[in-house]
Amino acid sequence: MTSRDIGLGLVGYGYWGPNIARVGAEAEGMRLAAVADGSAAARARAGKRFPGIALHEDWRDLVADPSVDAVAIATPVATHFDVALAALKAGKHVLVEKPMTRSSAEAAILIEEAARRRLVLMVDHTFVFTPAVRKIRDLMSDGVLGEVFYYDSTRINLGLFQTDVNVVWDLAVHDLAILDFLMGGGPASISATGARHVAGRPENTAHIALYFPRGTIAHLNVNWLAPVKIRRTLIGGSRRMVVWDDLEPSEKIKVYDRGVTVAADADRIRDILVSYRSGDMWAPQLSTREALLTAVEHFAACIAGGAAPLTGGESGLRVVEMLEAASRSLAERGRPVEFETVRRAS
Amino acid sequence: MTSRDIGLGLVGYGYWGPNIARVGAEAEGMRLAAVADGSAAARARAGKRFPGIALHEDWRDLVADPSVDAVAIATPVATHFDVALAALKAGKHVLVEKPMTRSSAEAAILIEEAARRRLVLMVDHTFVFTPAVRKIRDLMSDGVLGEVFYYDSTRINLGLFQTDVNVVWDLAVHDLAILDFLMGGGPASISATGARHVAGRPENTAHIALYFPRGTIAHLNVNWLAPVKIRRTLIGGSRRMVVWDDLEPSEKIKVYDRGVTVAADADRIRDILVSYRSGDMWAPQLSTREALLTAVEHFAACIAGGAAPLTGGESGLRVVEMLEAASRSLAERGRPVEFETVRRAS
Amino acid sequence: MTSRDIGLGLVGYGYWGPNIARVGAEAEGMRLAAVADGSAAARARAGKRFPGIALHEDWRDLVADPSVDAVAIATPVATHFDVALAALKAGKHVLVEKPMTRSSAEAAILIEEAARRRLVLMVDHTFVFTPAVRKIRDLMSDGVLGEVFYYDSTRINLGLFQTDVNVVWDLAVHDLAILDFLMGGGPASISATGARHVAGRPENTAHIALYFPRGTIAHLNVNWLAPVKIRRTLIGGSRRMVVWDDLEPSEKIKVYDRGVTVAADADRIRDILVSYRSGDMWAPQLSTREALLTAVEHFAACIAGGAAPLTGGESGLRVVEMLEAASRSLAERGRPVEFETVRRAS
Amino acid sequence: MTSRDIGLGLVGYGYWGPNIARVGAEAEGMRLAAVADGSAAARARAGKRFPGIALHEDWRDLVADPSVDAVAIATPVATHFDVALAALKAGKHVLVEKPMTRSSAEAAILIEEAARRRLVLMVDHTFVFTPAVRKIRDLMSDGVLGEVFYYDSTRINLGLFQTDVNVVWDLAVHDLAILDFLMGGGPASISATGARHVAGRPENTAHIALYFPRGTIAHLNVNWLAPVKIRRTLIGGSRRMVVWDDLEPSEKIKVYDRGVTVAADADRIRDILVSYRSGDMWAPQLSTREALLTAVEHFAACIAGGAAPLTGGESGLRVVEMLEAASRSLAERGRPVEFETVRRAS
Repeated sequence: MTSRDIGLGLVGYGYWGPNIARVGAEAEGMRLAAVADGSAAARARAGKRFPGIALHEDWRDLVADPSVDAVAIATPVATHFDVALAALKAGKHVLVEKPMTRSSAEAAILIEEAARRRLVLMVDHTFVFTPAVRKIRDLMSDGVLGEVFYYDSTRINLGLFQTDVNVVWDLAVHDLAILDFLMGGGPASISATGARHVAGRPENTAHIALYFPRGTIAHLNVNWLAPVKIRRTLIGGSRRMVVWDDLEPSEKIKVYDRGVTVAADADRIRDILVSYRSGDMWAPQLSTREALLTAVEHFAACIAGGAAPLTGGESGLRVVEMLEAASRSLAERGRPVEFETVRRAS
Repeated sequence: MTSRDIGLGLVGYGYWGPNIARVGAEAEGMRLAAVADGSAAARARAGKRFPGIALHEDWRDLVADPSVDAVAIATPVATHFDVALAALKAGKHVLVEKPMTRSSAEAAILIEEAARRRLVLMVDHTFVFTPAVRKIRDLMSDGVLGEVFYYDSTRINLGLFQTDVNVVWDLAVHDLAILDFLMGGGPASISATGARHVAGRPENTAHIALYFPRGTIAHLNVNWLAPVKIRRTLIGGSRRMVVWDDLEPSEKIKVYDRGVTVAADADRIRDILVSYRSGDMWAPQLSTREALLTAVEHFAACIAGGAAPLTGGESGLRVVEMLEAASRSLAERGRPVEFETVRRAS
Repeated sequence: MTSRDIGLGLVGYGYWGPNIARVGAEAEGMRLAAVADGSAAARARAGKRFPGIALHEDWRDLVADPSVDAVAIATPVATHFDVALAALKAGKHVLVEKPMTRSSAEAAILIEEAARRRLVLMVDHTFVFTPAVRKIRDLMSDGVLGEVFYYDSTRINLGLFQTDVNVVWDLAVHDLAILDFLMGGGPASISATGARHVAGRPENTAHIALYFPRGTIAHLNVNWLAPVKIRRTLIGGSRRMVVWDDLEPSEKIKVYDRGVTVAADADRIRDILVSYRSGDMWAPQLSTREALLTAVEHFAACIAGGAAPLTGGESGLRVVEMLEAASRSLAERGRPVEFETVRRAS
Repeated sequence: MTSRDIGLGLVGYGYWGPNIARVGAEAEGMRLAAVADGSAAARARAGKRFPGIALHEDWRDLVADPSVDAVAIATPVATHFDVALAALKAGKHVLVEKPMTRSSAEAAILIEEAARRRLVLMVDHTFVFTPAVRKIRDLMSDGVLGEVFYYDSTRINLGLFQTDVNVVWDLAVHDLAILDFLMGGGPASISATGARHVAGRPENTAHIALYFPRGTIAHLNVNWLAPVKIRRTLIGGSRRMVVWDDLEPSEKIKVYDRGVTVAADADRIRDILVSYRSGDMWAPQLSTREALLTAVEHFAACIAGGAAPLTGGESGLRVVEMLEAASRSLAERGRPVEFETVRRAS
C-alpha cells in the first residue's frame, strides 16, 4: 500500500459487498478506505473484518469522504443510479454492480456524466474477467470452434426471491454480459417466457432466446426455484463444441472435437446422409485467479492509466437494453422483440 | 415357451429393432417368430442372432405369415401407418414405435381399425414403463411434490441427423409421452422454436414450452448437435422437487425437500420476504428391470387378457397432436399454438 | 454364418454365460451351437433366447457333441479344470473364464495338454481387450506417461458374496490380468490384507500391493460390501498421469499433463524445492466396441489361423500365481511374499 | 468487538495462516491483534488485508505482545513445539496446527505445561468441527450404521511436496484425527507402506491400515502425486453405509440402506447363501458453516469458559502417536506395529 493507492469506498455491505471489500483491500494499487451501509449490524461486520476503515451509515457521507477516490456500488438495482450519479458528480470513479441500472435511460445519463467529467465508469460484469470466458473468447476468435451455432446456458439454483428484480435481471444478466463480450454485437431479436410461482413476487423462472444476425441462437434457462445448482453452458460450433461447467473445480472448459459430417450409407433402413463424428476431448488448463480481483485491479488500472474499461458504461447499457427487450417479450408471452428498435430508442 | 405363446413378427431390424427382437424373444408369453427387413445385411444379422426364426425381405410377407400373431413396427415414421394398417387388416395386433404416425389423421384411422377388429394397438412409449417415470407419477399422485410448478427437461446428445423427422419428433416425443402419462390431460398451448444447422436437413435443435391448464409449465430442450449426452429432468413442486437423471446408473431419481417459505428479515439491505428452505435429499431405490421388456410383456398381457394398453392408440394420437402443434409453432418462430384447437381438429 | 463357422459350446448359463452366448452368436467366424447347464430353468432361458441351439444338462454331453468345435467355460472356478481338461482331451479348443483355475498346478496341466494337442487355450481376461486398456498400453509404450510411478485401482461395489472364491479372486483378478498385460513382467513381491465381515464366508474386502522391479507400485482396493460401484484406476507417471474411470460412458480415459518440477521459492515459510505443474487434460476418443466380442473373435481367429492368443494359458497361469501369492500374504496379515519364488515353484 | 474480546496473535502467514487470520477477525469473542512472519512479503499481505493489526518479524515479539491473549501457530511442524512452549510460558493460550508436534515426547511436554498453567491448548483438527464428521459421529452413536466394518478413505491430489513431513504427516493426519474422534479409542495395530518418487524427498504416496480392537478396519490412501483431487471416505456398517465426498458442494454425506442378507437359491449354478440388499439412499441436509470458524470460536469459548477443548492436547498427542506408529511400519515395508506399545512408550 502506498500513498498513491486508490481509496475505495464501498456502498452496500450485504450479500455481495463483502467480496468487493475483501478484493478491494487486496487489489494491487488500491486500498479499502470506507464502507457505507444503513444497517448497524452490517457496519459492525465490516468494522470487525477491516479494523482500520471508515464506516458510514449514509452513503452520501461516503461519497463526500475525501479518503474515497472511487466508489463501488453493491446495493439493490433500484438505487444504483442515484448513488452512481452522486459519486460521479462528486468527482469519484464508479464501479457499479450488474445490472448497471433499472433502465437504459438511467444508464445513458451515467455514461454521459462520466464522459463529461472524464471519470471511469465500469460495470462489474465479473464473468467477463473469468479465465473460462477469456478462453471461450479465444477459442471463438481463433476459429477453433468454427461457425457458432448455439450458446445454450442453464443457470439455476434455489435462490433468494428478490423483490426488486425478477430472475431475468438477477441471473440471465450474467449470460447477457458474457454474450455482449463474446458476440461482438447485439442480437437481432429476443424472446422470453417465464412464470411466477409465488404470489406477489416477480418471475422466478424464465427461458430467453436471443437470435443473432449471423445465425447463432442463444438460449438461457434461469430459475430461482431449482433443487440443485447448475451453471453450465454448451457452445456448439461447426468445427468443435464447448461445455463450460462453472461449478467444476478444475476442468471448467471442455473442448470436444465433435460435429457432423456428410455421409451416405445405402445399407440402412434410415437413409442417413448426415452423420456425426466424435473425436477427442481437451480441457485446457485455466488460471485459478479470482475474477473479481482481476476486475477490481482492471478498474484500478483504468483509473491510474486513463484507459476505457473493458466493461464500461456502454456494455452496461447494452446489457440493460437486452434486459428491457426480454422484459417486454416476457410481458407478451414470448413475442419476439426486435432488438435494434430497442437500442435505437435508448 | 409354449404353443400358446404369442408369435411376434418384427418389421425393421435397424437401430432399435434388435432391442425389440431380443426382448420379444425373452418376454413372458411371447416368442420371436419372424423378422422383416429390406436389407440383406440386416436379415443376416437377425438370422445369426436368432437362428430359428423366419426372415422376410418384404414386410407384407411377414404380415401374412401365419406364425405371426402380433406385429412390432420399428421402421421410419413415414412407413408406420401403412405397415400398421395392413397388419390390423390381417388380424394382427400391433406394437408401433413412437411417434405413432406422421399425422393425427393417420393415428385416428389406426385407432378406428383396431377398435373395429378388437385388436390391441399399442405405441411403444417406453419411458412410461420405466421405474423412474412410475416413481415420479407416484410422487405426484401421492401429493409428495405438492403443486407441480414446472417440468424442465434437457435431452441432448450428438445424434444421427434423421431425414424424415426433426429433433422434436425424434427426441421431444419422449417427454411428450411422459407428460401425457403424468399430467392427466394435454396442455392449453404449445410454443416451439428451433434451428437447422445443416443445410437441407430438418431442425436439429429446439426448445418447446407447454402451458398446462393448472399452471404447470413444461420446457423441453432437445438437441442432436450437443457434444455430450444429457438426459435430465427437473420437476419443481410446491412441497418437494425432483431431479431425474436417466444416465445415472443407480440413483436416477432424487427427491429434494426444498422450496420456498415466507420470511422477513429487517436487517438486510434487500428486504427479503420470501426465502428458500433446504432440507434432506432422498433417492428411492428403483427396480432395474428393463422398461422395454416390461412394455413388451404388457403388450403380450393385453393381447392375452383383452385389456386396453396403458399406451394405446389414444395416447399415441395425443402425442402426435402435441407434435403437430409444436411443428406449427416452430414454423411461426414460437407463436403459442392453442392445443385444444388442434385436438378438436383431429 | 457358413459351414466353416466354429461351433461354440457354452458350459454354464448363469450370471456371465448369457453374455458369452450372445457374443458367440454374433461373432464373426463363429456360431452358437450348444449350451450346457445343470439347471432346467437356465436351459429354458437359453432355449428361449436362442431357439435353434442344442441344450445339455450334463457338460460331458456338450463336450462330446460333434457340432461343438470349441468350448467356453463359465462355471464356478472350482470346476474350470475338469471341464477344460475334458474338452481338450476331446480335441476341443477352450476359452475359460478368469481366474483360469483354482491353482497354478492345475493351470500348468491345462497348458501342457493344449500344447500337446495343438489346441487353442485362451483365458477370458476381458479387460485386456477393452479400448481403454489398449490405450493405456499405448500411452505407456509410447513414453507418453514417462516412468510409471504407481497404478492405483479401486474396484468396489455391493456384490454377491461368493462361496468358492474371495474378493481377491473375484475382483482383483481383473487388475492382475491388466497388470500382466501392461507391465511386461510380474511383480517382485505382493502384500495383501483383508477382512471377512460375514461369518463363514471368504474375505469380502482386501487391499493388495504389488511391488514391481523397476519401482512401480500397484495398489488394488477391492470390496464386495461397498454401497456404490467404483471402477477407477489412477496411473501416475513422471511425465503424465491417467485417470481411467470405466463407468464413465464417454470419457473413460483422461490424460493429465501434470506432475512435479523442481523449484525454489525463497520467500515462503515452507522452503519448497519441489512444486507441482498443472497442464491440460486430454480425453482420447475410444472405440465403443464391446470387449467381450473382440475377445471371442480373437479366440475364433486364433483357432482359424493357428496363432497364439494374447491371453493364452501362460497369462492365465501368471495371474493365478499372483492370486496364490496374494492369498499367502493375506493369510499372514500382509507379510510381503516374494513373487519369483512362487513362480519358480509352479 | 468489545474490550473483552480475546486478542489473537497468529504466527505464520503462509498457506494456511491467512484462513486463521480471516476467521480470527470474524469469530465471536475474538479479535485479530497481531501477525508474525519472517517474510516481509507475507507481512505486507497481512497488513494490506487487516489494516489495523500489529506486524512482527520475529514470533518472539508476538508472543511478548501484551495485546495478544492467545497464539495461533501455523508454521512448519518442526517449529510448533518451540513456539507453543514459549507462548504457554508467556501465559498465552495456544491453538496449534495439526500435526501438533514432531514427536509424542514434544506433545507430552506441551500438555504438561498447559495443564500446569491452566491454559487452553487446542490442536486444529479442523475436520472434527465439520458438519459432515459430526453427522457421521451421530449416525454411529445412534446405531444407524450398526456395527462398523470399515472406514476407507481416499485423500489424494497434486500437492506441494513438503520438506519437513511426508504425505502421511501431511494428509493422513486428517483421517487419524477423524478416527480419534469417531472411534473412541486407538487402533490395536497400524501398518503402512509408501513410496518416494522424487529423489531426496519424503514419501509422497502411502497406504495405511489401522486395525481397531472391535474389528473395524480403517484404510487410508494418501497421495501428493495424483492428477485429480479426491476426498472421499466410505464407511461400511452392518446396517447402513455412508459415502462422504467432501468435495461435493451440497450432498457431502450419503447414507445407503444397503448391506447383505442371508439367502438360499437352489436353482443357481453358484450356490449363493449370502446376498446383498439394496435400499434407498438419503442425504441429510448439513450446515454450511465453515468448520474453521466453528473451531476458532470453540477455542475462544474454552478460553472464556475454562472448558477443555474437544481437540485438546491429548487428542493431538494420540494422533502424533499414530503417526509415529505409521512411520515405523513404513520404514519396515508394512510390518504391523502394535499401537498400545507406542502409546505406553510415550
